Amino acid sequence: MKILAIDSSGLVATVAIVEDHNLIAEYTIHHKKTHSQTLMPMLEEVKNMVELDLNSVDAIAVASGPGSFTGLRIGAATAKGLAMGLGKPIIEVPTLEGMAYQMYGSQALVCPIMDARRNQVYTGLYQFVEDENGYRMEALKEGCACDIMECIEIANSFEMPVMFLGDGVPVFEALIREHATVPVYFAPAHRRLQSAASVGALAIEFAKKERFTEAKDHAPEYFRMSQAERERMEAAKKA
Amino acid sequence: MKILAIDSSGLVATVAIVEDHNLIAEYTIHHKKTHSQTLMPMLEEVKNMVELDLNSVDAIAVASGPGSFTGLRIGAATAKGLAMGLGKPIIEVPTLEGMAYQMYGSQALVCPIMDARRNQVYTGLYQFVEDENGYRMEALKEGCACDIMECIEIANSFEMPVMFLGDGVPVFEALIREHATVPVYFAPAHRRLQSAASVGALAIEFAKKERFTEAKDHAPEYFRMSQAERERMEAAKKA
Repeated sequence: MKILAIDSSGLVATVAIVEDHNLIAEYTIHHKKTHSQTLMPMLEEVKNMVELDLNSVDAIAVASGPGSFTGLRIGAATAKGLAMGLGKPIIEVPTLEGMAYQMYGSQALVCPIMDARRNQVYTGLYQFVEDENGYRMEALKEGCACDIMECIEIANSFEMPVMFLGDGVPVFEALIREHATVPVYFAPAHRRLQSAASVGALAIEFAKKERFTEAKDHAPEYFRMSQAERERMEAAKKA
Repeated sequence: MKILAIDSSGLVATVAIVEDHNLIAEYTIHHKKTHSQTLMPMLEEVKNMVELDLNSVDAIAVASGPGSFTGLRIGAATAKGLAMGLGKPIIEVPTLEGMAYQMYGSQALVCPIMDARRNQVYTGLYQFVEDENGYRMEALKEGCACDIMECIEIANSFEMPVMFLGDGVPVFEALIREHATVPVYFAPAHRRLQSAASVGALAIEFAKKERFTEAKDHAPEYFRMSQAERERMEAAKKA
């Protein structure tokens, strides 16, 4: 099973080619350029470097949300275009699960937090449970949008150390340290943000369970309305 | 602290730019091309993509061995050249430690195994110990060259689950499963082989302890003589 994986849900643009237990390539950029400037050139670069025949790819994995509205749309458009062109399925990997899977085998619970503005985060809480094949990632709290204080309460409730990661860390680290009643840690650089290798490795597991989506049916999962939609709704209410 | 990290100790060519808690870029290729074809173009590609001013880099981190003789020499030459040209220090990151740091925060002990031919591996055994800042990686067995059976004995001796990774896994997985007396697991694709992000993140920790080397003093650590050296020595003995 060979998977081309993409994550453009946040500021990071990241692409990878994963085949079973092998990471053939990963290219990750965390820079101020927009995904429309980076994602396709990065894919092209990697494809040329490893002399990839796109037809040899079995599925396109994409971080399916939540995340930045524009970033998710660029990721979805890229994945759908590739999948349709190649006649291959899409594997939707929830952004928070792809991020948590970075900490594969972690002692601590894993809590990705994505800054959703106005003291809100996209978050979830995950645990790695030992099984015969290594570690199985289980959700103690499924991905959701909530207030950062609620997120900290959830993290506290399991009375175990918690490893936070994601772009919410620099925003909320002080608040988390202040209100945590369990040991809290913050992932180092190489495990902090999105990684397409992680998305691809988790997609390999999803593929074993036949979690495929047809290209035409894929749409990002936003978790919330966009600011424009909220404003339109509020204006409609007033009118 | 901004670090440019390189690992060409094995079949993987991987470069990264790490700044404190941030992974600015990583580019990793596991392909049949030689490092002399990949490493510099990859560095150039990444440098251009993130508009990196090389003078803003504080140190060059390099996987310092063990590993492939040619790969280590290419890595060392690249690192020394950059460090000399920029007037910056080198941070030597032992290959096995950089690989083990992939599994940051792991429940299981971490055992990288690099195939050194003739049933030998380069290996070490590492544990992640919780401390106030997260996890500290401690060597239960420092990096060494040994027979795979000795490696399995060491892994068995701590009576804890062990996660194996490295290019020795496909070669020795069956043997390990046969002789292990503890639960043994094998890292998934995104944690299986070398990663410059991991080398860079560990180099950030080394920098805090001032573990710098002058460019002129850096040399790879081979752990063993090369085949050519062994053969010359044997020929000399016979003569």
